[in-house]
Amino acid sequence: MRIARVVGETIATLKSERIQGTKLLICKATDPSGKVIGKPYVAIDLVDAGVGDLVLTCHGSAARQTYLTKDTPVDAVINAVIDHLEVDGEIVFRKS
Amino acid sequence: MRIARVVGETIATLKSERIQGTKLLICKATDPSGKVIGKPYVAIDLVDAGVGDLVLTCHGSAARQTYLTKDTPVDAVINAVIDHLEVDGEIVFRKS
Amino acid sequence: MRIARVVGETIATLKSERIQGTKLLICKATDPSGKVIGKPYVAIDLVDAGVGDLVLTCHGSAARQTYLTKDTPVDAVINAVIDHLEVDGEIVFRKS
Amino acid sequence: MRIARVVGETIATLKSERIQGTKLLICKATDPSGKVIGKPYVAIDLVDAGVGDLVLTCHGSAARQTYLTKDTPVDAVINAVIDHLEVDGEIVFRKS
Amino acid sequence: MRIARVVGETIATLKSERIQGTKLLICKATDPSGKVIGKPYVAIDLVDAGVGDLVLTCHGSAARQTYLTKDTPVDAVINAVIDHLEVDGEIVFRKS
Repeated sequence: MRIARVVGETIATLKSERIQGTKLLICKATDPSGKVIGKPYVAIDLVDAGVGDLVLTCHGSAARQTYLTKDTPVDAVINAVIDHLEVDGEIVFRKS
Repeated sequence: MRIARVVGETIATLKSERIQGTKLLICKATDPSGKVIGKPYVAIDLVDAGVGDLVLTCHGSAARQTYLTKDTPVDAVINAVIDHLEVDGEIVFRKS
Repeated sequence: MRIARVVGETIATLKSERIQGTKLLICKATDPSGKVIGKPYVAIDLVDAGVGDLVLTCHGSAARQTYLTKDTPVDAVINAVIDHLEVDGEIVFRKS
Repeated sequence: MRIARVVGETIATLKSERIQGTKLLICKATDPSGKVIGKPYVAIDLVDAGVGDLVLTCHGSAARQTYLTKDTPVDAVINAVIDHLEVDGEIVFRKS
Repeated sequence: MRIARVVGETIATLKSERIQGTKLLICKATDPSGKVIGKPYVAIDLVDAGVGDLVLTCHGSAARQTYLTKDTPVDAVINAVIDHLEVDGEIVFRKS
């Protein structure tokens, strides 16, 4: 999984009917300190995340191992909002 | 999924009969502002996209979760034309 | 899929009997203008491609969606020789 | 698989019930000498690893080939703590 | 598949019983001339390769398409020792 910050939303009609109406959030991978470390990508929101949240996203066939996304053309989902991150024994992020 | 701009088309006869005749569009991943951020790749068009459109592409086994591409040697499809993109509360792209 | 140029051949005995004797071609991903944009990799030839050809390669589990490669330890195949490429309305490559 | 150092932990409630309560460790890929060579990512701990351990992580659908992670939205697991590493005939790392 | 040089070995006890005792070789991807072009990774040896050998490795779900690795948490295997490599009609590598 990647640690990522939700930065926006994509409005688009996906080909698959089953996932129409789901939120397509734009994410940027970050390191634990919140620094952006990757290119933006779009993930289906499974956990009612919002812009600004730090989340976990999972990728590839893993993204279809949920009731909502099973057998759909989806390769990335947000499967957790991060509560806090601890690096080398110190809390480096806590959800406000 | 990736946000991508369609920049061209590939004319080639694919090995698999089931997907012969489909459009093979050349895409470049972009960030939400439209800046190119990745190398060009080729995706099967599922949504009648055209050159210049901003689209979503999905990759890997996800690309075979559609009626057209099931069980075919395809690793990327265009599964939505983007209507608009919103970043940090502002509309940064709107389909014209 | 990736646009790639075939640059050579690997002679090696693969573990899986079913794919022994297939051609293992060395490919380099290119952009539509033919400029190399990625590292070399090896793909199983499905379409009788040769050194110098511009081809499409597909990757991951997609590479096993063919009669020859089903259930074999293969992660990349050449599934088309490119006839021509069109970018922004202009032909940028045509097979000679 | 990647050689990686465990650097921290993510506290978050995953969507899938089956994997709630598992440790979500933050890892950084390293070369055999311990030098960091990649971006941080989060993997489910299968082997009771701790911060500072050098581990092996596996990715993609491979991460779901265990009793714990089968059919769950997980794309990375820690499946071994490394005991020692040998490069060009010399021991370059030994677990203390 | 990637062309890679075997540079060392990892000693670690993998979670899955079926693959315990297999050799976990450290590989570095190379171009056909033998120049290292990627980060080191660990692959299960299927072909009795040794340090110094030039090999082919396959990745992702392809790595589980063998009797030994079926249904195991493995994402990379060595499935051939390279005999020789030919680029643009010239032999650039021959196993000694």
